[in-house]
Amino acid sequence: MTGAARIALAPLTSDFLEQAITGAGARLSELSDARALVWDGGPNGFPDLPESIEWVQLYSAGVEEFFDAGIFERHPNVVFTSAAGAFAKSVAEATMALLLAGVRYLPEHIRAHSWRQTEFFPHIGTLRGATVAVVGAGGIGREVIAMLEPFGARVIAVNRSGRPVDAPNVVETIPAERISEVWARTDHVVVAAPATDGTRHLIGKDELTQLKPHSWVINVARGSLIDTEALVAALREGAVGGAGLDVTDPEPLPDGHPLWDLPNVIITPHDSNPPQLRTAAFAEHVAANVTRFVQGRELIARIDPEAGY
Amino acid sequence: MTGAARIALAPLTSDFLEQAITGAGARLSELSDARALVWDGGPNGFPDLPESIEWVQLYSAGVEEFFDAGIFERHPNVVFTSAAGAFAKSVAEATMALLLAGVRYLPEHIRAHSWRQTEFFPHIGTLRGATVAVVGAGGIGREVIAMLEPFGARVIAVNRSGRPVDAPNVVETIPAERISEVWARTDHVVVAAPATDGTRHLIGKDELTQLKPHSWVINVARGSLIDTEALVAALREGAVGGAGLDVTDPEPLPDGHPLWDLPNVIITPHDSNPPQLRTAAFAEHVAANVTRFVQGRELIARIDPEAGY
Repeated sequence: MTGAARIALAPLTSDFLEQAITGAGARLSELSDARALVWDGGPNGFPDLPESIEWVQLYSAGVEEFFDAGIFERHPNVVFTSAAGAFAKSVAEATMALLLAGVRYLPEHIRAHSWRQTEFFPHIGTLRGATVAVVGAGGIGREVIAMLEPFGARVIAVNRSGRPVDAPNVVETIPAERISEVWARTDHVVVAAPATDGTRHLIGKDELTQLKPHSWVINVARGSLIDTEALVAALREGAVGGAGLDVTDPEPLPDGHPLWDLPNVIITPHDSNPPQLRTAAFAEHVAANVTRFVQGRELIARIDPEAGY
Repeated sequence: MTGAARIALAPLTSDFLEQAITGAGARLSELSDARALVWDGGPNGFPDLPESIEWVQLYSAGVEEFFDAGIFERHPNVVFTSAAGAFAKSVAEATMALLLAGVRYLPEHIRAHSWRQTEFFPHIGTLRGATVAVVGAGGIGREVIAMLEPFGARVIAVNRSGRPVDAPNVVETIPAERISEVWARTDHVVVAAPATDGTRHLIGKDELTQLKPHSWVINVARGSLIDTEALVAALREGAVGGAGLDVTDPEPLPDGHPLWDLPNVIITPHDSNPPQLRTAAFAEHVAANVTRFVQGRELIARIDPEAGY
């Protein structure tokens, strides 16, 4: 390689990201002259890439909208990487906040205006000895599994391959094609799998029926993975204990939607990874990938256009 | 030793506890004939102990009421053990639920009835890279420290001796006499220290003033450790971010108390260790101590009448 790799940053620039790129050994340049592009915007306005571009780093973990816009199809010779994993720690922390709030009956505590100890006692559960199904053992799932460990929760991990997830508290790893075995065996469910055609309505009426009256369902992936109507029905009937939703379907969830009024639902409006936490995490991710690019090593979070994420 | 050690169980019996005692190699007997007593009641009705009693296991982690009733004083030759540590895991889990709910702004989310994403964004914090002061590094404190680790929080531990707490995320251990150094240096505070004359109003106006507008104060110890009036004032003025209180002063907190109406307060009415979780945890603790008693080893959670806990 002669000289530093030239990388373009668009549509927005920031000192944070410029430093991440140059600090990792690359040089900032115009797109027309660059070997790589760090694109910190959405699919609208995504440029026609010059032939010199080998790699594009995107700014989100989920990249359905780029698929829908045909951007990968238009650039079959370019390696795209997502930000998958970069935001995993913040989203995993939000997942734990939702799960613990649910298991510990915090919504009703927060609404209380008097000392209702004996009334609350029987509703308080624990993660200790409980089984948590972590559906999708990518970046977020793995962080959640690590966070669950000191709480004494057993994990059933679900991933595409069924290749065992290596963590002390994972009691079993089940391949996605056998996910139907999971529902009756778990206390709680954390959904952290990518949104693909294959995962739409992964959790519907049949799945919810097999869960337990104390089960909490946490979704930090995409709203479409859960059949909202079936979830509302299951919550109303007490088939499950509650739901913690960072993502919804539809999203944004419109005013007046029944989910807003259910007492055992916590909605965090897709804010598990707010801007002030994103910036630092994305810069760290960019620096790691630029370092790898400069050194000719394999990039983190490479998008597989065939798999759909 | 000839035959199994004889242990009395009173005032209540349960299969759970009987099995814990006999399973650990002792034999159940009447108090008059016993070498030890497992007392699963409060100080009221505590019996005059016969001279044969060497050890009494109590059912709570905090034993102020037994001190107040003069029970230790009346039996200077008897070893008393509390249940300290037995309930630590459940209380630590509740602590994490409160802290995460606070840092992640869940109270306002739970009250919301519409998608307020951009309004919520700036209020969402993270434990990652944050400093948490864990005041009292006994059973609960040590469990909390372990649970904080995968979240990437740095811990300043405060204990009596200042002897370093050995955990990868503890950046410093400070002796109780130097606790005044802690407030300005931490983001959040977890109070898990015993209630003694020395810890009354450990956190008052001066301490709260040194905390940060985003600081959450979690109290799972005893209400008296925090000056309630000063806390209400600090919350109203925004001197701190919020409070998660499993214990209050006065307790129970009366209806109409200002703490019930503050939006950034979560009160769990001393239910971090509800009966259904206590029974199993206490039986485990009793079994461990009976095993040690039978083997003539040192008992867990021995009460030090001079220290006051």
